[in-house]
Amino acid sequence: MIDRKHAVFTQVNNVVGTLNVLFAIREFLPDCHLIKLGTMGEYGTPNFDIEEGYIAIEHNGRKDVVPFPKQPGSFYHLSKVHDSHNMMFACKIWGIRATDLNQGVVYGTMTDETALDEALINRFDYDDVFGTVLNRFCVQAAIGQPLTVYGKGGQTRGFLDIRDTVRCIELACHNPAARGECRVYNQFTEQFSVLDLARMVESAAKKLGVTVEIDHIPDPRVEAEQHYYNAKHSKLIDLGLQPHHLSDSLLDSLMNIAMKYRDRVDASLMLPQVNWREPKNERRMQMSMPTKSSASEPSVEQNLLHKMRAVKG
Amino acid sequence: MIDRKHAVFTQVNNVVGTLNVLFAIREFLPDCHLIKLGTMGEYGTPNFDIEEGYIAIEHNGRKDVVPFPKQPGSFYHLSKVHDSHNMMFACKIWGIRATDLNQGVVYGTMTDETALDEALINRFDYDDVFGTVLNRFCVQAAIGQPLTVYGKGGQTRGFLDIRDTVRCIELACHNPAARGECRVYNQFTEQFSVLDLARMVESAAKKLGVTVEIDHIPDPRVEAEQHYYNAKHSKLIDLGLQPHHLSDSLLDSLMNIAMKYRDRVDASLMLPQVNWREPKNERRMQMSMPTKSSASEPSVEQNLLHKMRAVKG
Repeated sequence: MIDRKHAVFTQVNNVVGTLNVLFAIREFLPDCHLIKLGTMGEYGTPNFDIEEGYIAIEHNGRKDVVPFPKQPGSFYHLSKVHDSHNMMFACKIWGIRATDLNQGVVYGTMTDETALDEALINRFDYDDVFGTVLNRFCVQAAIGQPLTVYGKGGQTRGFLDIRDTVRCIELACHNPAARGECRVYNQFTEQFSVLDLARMVESAAKKLGVTVEIDHIPDPRVEAEQHYYNAKHSKLIDLGLQPHHLSDSLLDSLMNIAMKYRDRVDASLMLPQVNWREPKNERRMQMSMPTKSSASEPSVEQNLLHKMRAVKG
Repeated sequence: MIDRKHAVFTQVNNVVGTLNVLFAIREFLPDCHLIKLGTMGEYGTPNFDIEEGYIAIEHNGRKDVVPFPKQPGSFYHLSKVHDSHNMMFACKIWGIRATDLNQGVVYGTMTDETALDEALINRFDYDDVFGTVLNRFCVQAAIGQPLTVYGKGGQTRGFLDIRDTVRCIELACHNPAARGECRVYNQFTEQFSVLDLARMVESAAKKLGVTVEIDHIPDPRVEAEQHYYNAKHSKLIDLGLQPHHLSDSLLDSLMNIAMKYRDRVDASLMLPQVNWREPKNERRMQMSMPTKSSASEPSVEQNLLHKMRAVKG
């Protein structure tokens, strides 16, 4: 959403990458099972329940099951919709096995494996483009900034713990799709609105003796700020997923991590720099700047941390 | 559908081209009206009526109007679906005015303007990749080849006269979309199955004293050979389109053109060279080869004619 160049790069990169993989599977390993990460953002926010990939429609007295109509909300999410259409077609004509995991917004920083050693610590994206909202709120609370809710904050999405993300991929591996099947799973465990999350972070911070404010700022995106949202997500549960819900204890641990590393936070990355209504956005150089609580020079490690960018849900 | 390289080129070319136009409109001429040619092939063949771009759905007791679910039937048609999604989004976030003309299969060779002089003669694509089915049948009849129906021939599509194509674009120009509106018109006038068309050409040929056979050959494409098909197409009629239907007289004139120029026909281009089930297809060099009725060397003009390729519906 930054500008034309970024939009073209994102779409070409995803579309061509996926086409190449599909053709390679057909040519060299037609029986393998493709597992691809899509995103819940492909669906948008229709005024009815979101199904897992397909919807049964009765129209003028006739019935069919068709791909769920997509209303993605950014050029990035559009690239994933393009991929989904290409993938469904390749399954149909070539009999490829595929699972499309429409992932929600991921939160959390560690799995049991990465927790074994601090050297395995995961990245924690909180900036305005690649960061996800719960991470940003925790970081804002940790450095004493108001939580910045875009507009009314009624934007509701599906969320999941990073440990469940990994488990879902494992479950898909163990239960491959049939030949010619393009299976779609909605990969998230709970729905929250942005304002729900802000209030939860406010409470978690209070337990640590930190008072936070919630600011409503004009929404830099073009999206419904209040809407119906009910997305199905039972297929991975049926395969054995046992969700880690966003309980108080998990949120407490997220807050603790944000507090522990708050000296590394670049406070200049919190406010939106990209206005979706503009075709060109000049972003400031994203280099580490010392926060109020740390006057030291940014380390190589800090700079690296900010350069690493997350794969968004 | 030839191979990976062609699929990637087609999708990148259409997707990036349309993205560039959308960003240019937003930046330089936000009030202009974009008219884009899409294709009826974006919809595929669902088992219910095809609407013009959008469908009202009631699902689990809630209602919304959403983009019609797309099930395109080739990598080319997929590229048009990607464009449609990008265009709808650009209208939404930037208030662009757009009309997407989902065109059916075009037949005919001339408009009133091109008929003024033979130098303005239009191309007439009949080959296996870019040619359209009615053109091919007329050419096959003219050179005494059997009409090659793919499979059962129940494949049903929307068709229109080339003069109506031009008129539809004119109508869209004179009736611009509102700001932020992404209007979709289904641009065709009649539905026919492939076998219907073969029988119509058989009759038209008979009137010219030409006997033709109809051959059913294995379908090189992956598509339903018998299916429900009822696509709406009233919006352009409401704007004033007066269709030229595929009457006997029009078909007679098409057959006459095919007969008149039959010496130029490359008889080697009729049979399908691309099997959609294969990820790689080696096509023969497409150079003019003398037909039975013409032993002369192919002219530069003949070669050129075959190199010019149509924009397909």
